[in-house]
Amino acid sequence: LHKKIMTIFYAPIELIGMMDSPFVRRVAIALTHYELPFQLQALSVYQHPERLAAINPLLTVPVLRNASLTLLDSREILAWIDMQSPHPNLRDTQLSAHNLARAASDVLALKAGELYRELGLRNENLHSESSVQRIISQMAAALYSIEATAHRLPDQINHTSIAIATSYRFAQTVAQHFRLELPITLTLQKRCQQWEHLPVFVACDPD
Amino acid sequence: LHKKIMTIFYAPIELIGMMDSPFVRRVAIALTHYELPFQLQALSVYQHPERLAAINPLLTVPVLRNASLTLLDSREILAWIDMQSPHPNLRDTQLSAHNLARAASDVLALKAGELYRELGLRNENLHSESSVQRIISQMAAALYSIEATAHRLPDQINHTSIAIATSYRFAQTVAQHFRLELPITLTLQKRCQQWEHLPVFVACDPD
Repeated sequence: LHKKIMTIFYAPIELIGMMDSPFVRRVAIALTHYELPFQLQALSVYQHPERLAAINPLLTVPVLRNASLTLLDSREILAWIDMQSPHPNLRDTQLSAHNLARAASDVLALKAGELYRELGLRNENLHSESSVQRIISQMAAALYSIEATAHRLPDQINHTSIAIATSYRFAQTVAQHFRLELPITLTLQKRCQQWEHLPVFVACDPD
Repeated sequence: LHKKIMTIFYAPIELIGMMDSPFVRRVAIALTHYELPFQLQALSVYQHPERLAAINPLLTVPVLRNASLTLLDSREILAWIDMQSPHPNLRDTQLSAHNLARAASDVLALKAGELYRELGLRNENLHSESSVQRIISQMAAALYSIEATAHRLPDQINHTSIAIATSYRFAQTVAQHFRLELPITLTLQKRCQQWEHLPVFVACDPD
């Protein structure tokens, strides 16, 4: 216990990124769930590229760092966070069974990011209708894949359900911003609404 | 031993994807290294979307499957492959120390894929010079990040060095295809040449 307190006192955790990134939010929710104190440094890839590059030349978020290490890649960061907790109960105990839902969550979030770059960062005369259609159809496939397995997920949250909920929220936000329609997935929608009401999710709200 | 032989006999491993994807190649190299027999089903996201969608609606590669399971996501697939081997000596024993090199390898491969979609799949009049510049500068940052740590990697190959080598090869191939220049990173180049001469790399050649 003494060692744990010392660690927290001398090596505060800093999380770099903004909560509107689903990958940053996954890390913030895990830290909050485990009651590991952290400071959020709200830097964005698109709004603060120079300040972010000084911390991470790859220009990716999340970045997690303390006095002794800097870590990139949300999955590696989450594995490290699990190791810091005496009760890493966010670890998914049915890894293979939930592989598709987890992979679909990553595709959903990555393609929503691609959609944002296509329609939000590019000059309007350089938009490609076929690219938008390809992206939207991959997002739809991801939503259907998660929907098909959503009822089998445990009520207790874990890394898989956090990945699903954060990706779902981000995809809906991006689609609404550009007035695009995503397929309605009722089971998934209901579960995500339940998860979003949990205190750890509310504490890491993207809005 | 009997159980292992039975498993291999009754559940042959099928790897879906093409060797020109660095993420597919990582899996093929790991299977070859562990001497786990597998069949390659050469399907491409861009050339065979319908046939791939029938196996994986998310339209991503690699896919690994046998009689009892289907797995997506190269990192999850590699973790599963490690568990099938009695001597999983590709596991990186210095995870945190090599975190940056591994994250940079993923960025390098993902951005090379983005460059291919930008210049290879999009109509020429819809190319965005600023997007190409952003992608190239992220690839350059990734190369410099790997170069800075390349001399510290062990001579023995592991998942980190395989990730580096496969991403490097793919990035060079895409850049040469579009006659774009990437920064020269001499230490990295030399190490990748050494790795590419190893029998497991030659057996999984992308060309």
